[in-house]
Amino acid sequence: MTDTYTRLVSQGLGKDLAKRLGLPQPAVLRRYTPGQALVNGPVLVQGSTPGADELATTLLSWNLDVRRHAVPGEKLGAIILVLDGLAAPADLEKPVLSAAASLRDLGPSARFITVSRPAAEAGSPAEAAARQGVDGFVRSLAKELRAGATANGILLADEAQSTSPSTLGALRFFLSGRSAFVDGQFLTVSSANGVLPADPDQPLAGKVAVVTGAARGIGAAIARTLHRDGATLVLVDIPAAGDHLAAVANEVHGTALQLDISHVDAGQRILEHTLQRHGRLDIVVHNAGITRDKLLANMDHARWNAVLNINIGAQLRINEALLASDQFRGAPRIVSVASTSGIAGNRGQTNYAASKGGVMGMVRTTAPLLAARGGTINAVAPGFIETEMTARIPFAIREVGRRLNALQQGGLPSDVAEAIAFLASDAAGGINGDILRVCGQNLVGA
Amino acid sequence: MTDTYTRLVSQGLGKDLAKRLGLPQPAVLRRYTPGQALVNGPVLVQGSTPGADELATTLLSWNLDVRRHAVPGEKLGAIILVLDGLAAPADLEKPVLSAAASLRDLGPSARFITVSRPAAEAGSPAEAAARQGVDGFVRSLAKELRAGATANGILLADEAQSTSPSTLGALRFFLSGRSAFVDGQFLTVSSANGVLPADPDQPLAGKVAVVTGAARGIGAAIARTLHRDGATLVLVDIPAAGDHLAAVANEVHGTALQLDISHVDAGQRILEHTLQRHGRLDIVVHNAGITRDKLLANMDHARWNAVLNINIGAQLRINEALLASDQFRGAPRIVSVASTSGIAGNRGQTNYAASKGGVMGMVRTTAPLLAARGGTINAVAPGFIETEMTARIPFAIREVGRRLNALQQGGLPSDVAEAIAFLASDAAGGINGDILRVCGQNLVGA
Repeated sequence: MTDTYTRLVSQGLGKDLAKRLGLPQPAVLRRYTPGQALVNGPVLVQGSTPGADELATTLLSWNLDVRRHAVPGEKLGAIILVLDGLAAPADLEKPVLSAAASLRDLGPSARFITVSRPAAEAGSPAEAAARQGVDGFVRSLAKELRAGATANGILLADEAQSTSPSTLGALRFFLSGRSAFVDGQFLTVSSANGVLPADPDQPLAGKVAVVTGAARGIGAAIARTLHRDGATLVLVDIPAAGDHLAAVANEVHGTALQLDISHVDAGQRILEHTLQRHGRLDIVVHNAGITRDKLLANMDHARWNAVLNINIGAQLRINEALLASDQFRGAPRIVSVASTSGIAGNRGQTNYAASKGGVMGMVRTTAPLLAARGGTINAVAPGFIETEMTARIPFAIREVGRRLNALQQGGLPSDVAEAIAFLASDAAGGINGDILRVCGQNLVGA
Repeated sequence: MTDTYTRLVSQGLGKDLAKRLGLPQPAVLRRYTPGQALVNGPVLVQGSTPGADELATTLLSWNLDVRRHAVPGEKLGAIILVLDGLAAPADLEKPVLSAAASLRDLGPSARFITVSRPAAEAGSPAEAAARQGVDGFVRSLAKELRAGATANGILLADEAQSTSPSTLGALRFFLSGRSAFVDGQFLTVSSANGVLPADPDQPLAGKVAVVTGAARGIGAAIARTLHRDGATLVLVDIPAAGDHLAAVANEVHGTALQLDISHVDAGQRILEHTLQRHGRLDIVVHNAGITRDKLLANMDHARWNAVLNINIGAQLRINEALLASDQFRGAPRIVSVASTSGIAGNRGQTNYAASKGGVMGMVRTTAPLLAARGGTINAVAPGFIETEMTARIPFAIREVGRRLNALQQGGLPSDVAEAIAFLASDAAGGINGDILRVCGQNLVGA
């Protein structure tokens, strides 16, 4: 499930060789499978009260081994550091250095997770400094952790608490193998909305989900993951991909809808098909996208327009149709696929980056419209993901792209799918208008 | 003024060799010197009316060669693309591809500058998508331009227009050699405040400025640049750096103040010295900072606290003293030095990144307090800058750090100083709470 290089250097002779030659030795990441333990060992909960106490109690109720104090020499599955009461930068010292003392006890693919508050909502410069300090801290620590361990953070807006449903949902996501390729990132819990699933292995039970661009690659992975999580699926792709689409639909027991999403009535057709065949529509995943790379100096109108129209124009039109419908109600979810190219830009991709930047702008501004009907819209921004598309990149460039992140490897389509499945779930009901990078903490940034 | 490698490969045999070996060939950047022409050739102004027309008229009044239509084959100093009326992503096509046709005409160290509006203030999802699309577009284009040319953008908040003083101030900054190492970045003009200087080569005439950490490196460069721009200087550094400090003070005809900025009364002492010796205080540059790198697993309390206390604690206390004073009035300016490490995190720098993240959080939250007295507070975030500090980094790591940006070279202390001088000037009066990266579009990002 990982790339050839990562498999070669992860054991035996290859491991020894890589070590002697000073080559990168990416860890084989612990990825989620149904029934898997949430986390690989005891969870140390530290930081400010009452937040840390409340969280520890909740984690105990999940049947986790919870520690409030480090047990010397004991391997840990995770450290959770609650920093929701910082008033000034000096308040960081005690909790941070207390957690630092346990870092060596983190096992492979362990987790370090902070729970703090957004700097933008701070009441004073000192409070804002402390809160934004957590950001710099987590992103640095993520670059220090090894063996597949990651560091991420949860930001609680004023309306959210450490035990709000989506705080716990985000915590489960970050603790679990579902977030294997998410590193150095933050999720913001903006409200107390959200419901934890009755069965953590079937968080989408009873939901009907539409996935565009589902015939292959990341889209097919999304379909498989949503299906595994209990959703009923409508898979959309262009007629030319009909055979692939039918195969995936067959595999996940869903229905296939051959449709060019750039058609002006695509939203209406998605609604009609889904309601007619499945009686409801809960989740829409805007995954379909294309690239038509050219340096801007060589860009033509056809390449520019195709990318802008399919990658963002279609999403805007489909959302408009969905939001005009009385059938897209009851906590509906939209999740869009953006890209780190849209955040940082990429040579040869002015059109693609404009379209993916567009997706992020659209998501943030559409969030209040979804909130008004109890729903959410969010985006994931994949970094380097191992797909047919990236397999066509020349080897040397691909190797650089793959290794230029804190986990020293490309992600898998399923990593993107896991993040989408989480954002589409009831547990993420308090997360709205957010962008989650799935990039192994790719160096490439704004 | 650039590093040895860049000089070697920029001409003659070294240039040929580097080309044959496929080594990076960073351009020698055009940097500002007093009296220098604003821009190196005609300026093509394209995009939406009336913004583009108004800007073209203003640029004509600056005695620039202004073109509203490309003249085939003519080398250009800059392209300005006005995109302040975008309603949907499809609106990008025409202006972007029109400008694209002139990209090959850009000369060395040319400029591409967009003028658009912030996505956060958009009235509809489609408008937000178009606006955020400009972000992805500019950051991609910046990675395509060569020979020291850069691409940057100006964002006009609702209260600002294409000819507001700080729009023009930002435009002059981006056009000029002052922004040589700023690439792929945006400045937000948040109000119609600001005044263009009577003499563009003396924008700080009559101002009294305090610079902390001024004895060497970036601090000394800031002192020299503010002095060149007309300011009277108070230079602050620790007593141990007294000789260096005195030398810089002598050079820029300023006064030296030996002071540990982490002392609880540092703000009061800065105020007293400055008012007593110079009668007023207009500008404070928080440059002083230290590193005490260690992996978090090996971090001790002394290293953590020293960095947090000096890099952010001191700034908070000094600002509090300044804001409590009736003497720090009349459009006062604060400019802080943050770091790309505070944005993206850095291995071995949890303490430094927390402190520099803290600076950014502080700046954004302090902005309204400065606005209330007609002033501003902003930060610059340097990337890899050639200093005594970075000269101590082992060669191979230094080479990677240096080249991992769109300009394939480290910046100079003067590049950071130029950005600070601009943000401290009256022309930047409409820019408040902003963070400007001076990093050559460093790959390292959030």
